[in-house]
Amino acid sequence: MEEKGISQAVISRLPRYFRYLGELKDEGVERISSQDLSELMKVTASQIRQDFNNFGGFGQQGYGYNVEYLYEEIGKILGLDKEHHLIIIGSGNLGQALANYMNFERRGFIIKGLFDTNTNLYNKEIRGIKVQPMEDIKDFVKENDIDIAVLTIPKSSAVGVAEQLVEYGIKAIWNFAHVDLNVPKGVLVENVHLSDSLMKLSYNLNCYELGEE
Amino acid sequence: MEEKGISQAVISRLPRYFRYLGELKDEGVERISSQDLSELMKVTASQIRQDFNNFGGFGQQGYGYNVEYLYEEIGKILGLDKEHHLIIIGSGNLGQALANYMNFERRGFIIKGLFDTNTNLYNKEIRGIKVQPMEDIKDFVKENDIDIAVLTIPKSSAVGVAEQLVEYGIKAIWNFAHVDLNVPKGVLVENVHLSDSLMKLSYNLNCYELGEE
Repeated sequence: MEEKGISQAVISRLPRYFRYLGELKDEGVERISSQDLSELMKVTASQIRQDFNNFGGFGQQGYGYNVEYLYEEIGKILGLDKEHHLIIIGSGNLGQALANYMNFERRGFIIKGLFDTNTNLYNKEIRGIKVQPMEDIKDFVKENDIDIAVLTIPKSSAVGVAEQLVEYGIKAIWNFAHVDLNVPKGVLVENVHLSDSLMKLSYNLNCYELGEE
Repeated sequence: MEEKGISQAVISRLPRYFRYLGELKDEGVERISSQDLSELMKVTASQIRQDFNNFGGFGQQGYGYNVEYLYEEIGKILGLDKEHHLIIIGSGNLGQALANYMNFERRGFIIKGLFDTNTNLYNKEIRGIKVQPMEDIKDFVKENDIDIAVLTIPKSSAVGVAEQLVEYGIKAIWNFAHVDLNVPKGVLVENVHLSDSLMKLSYNLNCYELGEE
């Protein structure tokens, strides 16, 4: 991040490149020009070249990019060549949805544990993973080399749980609770604020309707 | 949107202002300076003033902002003073999680219908709403004045379903499928690409670990 001076805006675009390149690879496409990639992804070719130049450029223009190479390289940059161990805290519908999503595992994000305060869930198994009480998080994190915690709990408890997770040595939190977490420097938080996203849609819908009248 | 020349970056920040102002209002705070809001939200006061100036500024500096007024105004800008009617297409864990989330309803986002291809779900009721077959979407959209469709279905069917929704007159799609939808101009899409968000976290974790070594 700061070390490399690459902006979060560029980082935010990398997964989309990775997705398109994966699809091209699956379709058997071997090379693609920045122009063709630009048309496919509906971003300018200049944007693509600028983004890729942050990482050395990934190959000669004129010949186009080698799809498989580019896919692999962007995957490495995203840390997808490594295995990450996750726990999900909050095993309601959203936690279960995330635990059931096989694609995360394909990318090296292995769900190791599920936790909840709701005792009714303790017998439940999701893809072979039993829901455990919150009290067991501390030992579980140590024993299972957990690096990412997913927070799918209500806003009211998220801040406190996040503080505990940091104490237990968690370095990255994927936060679905609708609150900003206060974590020390060195602990990463990536927020998915669903309400914010829906409000943005509502804003644009509102503007569009006003524009139409 | 384009009509007003306000960037999507500014729009993206509005829900967060709205959230903080709502919390301040609930705590009984009547006025707040841009400086205090800046410290609370960890953005610069200049950023706050610039953002608010897009909408006329919202009140005098020196006196600070009137919290309730600002909260109401930003709510109106976000279209939260209107009622939106939603359907959720894909009634698995994620669809159910969204249907169960009461906060959306508080903001005027009323879930009217749930749909799925899975016949086993047709007897299921979530907060009094029955899961219906996909074939019923067309009539339901007309009869219930639906303006937002939530897509929580796999990538493979999302593109086709989105095309149908546009035919049925849907103007806004909140898309959780991990694919970019091709919709005609005038139809709004707001994407929640969860994998992209997780990859961004992984990138930052990767950089942080490399930086530490």
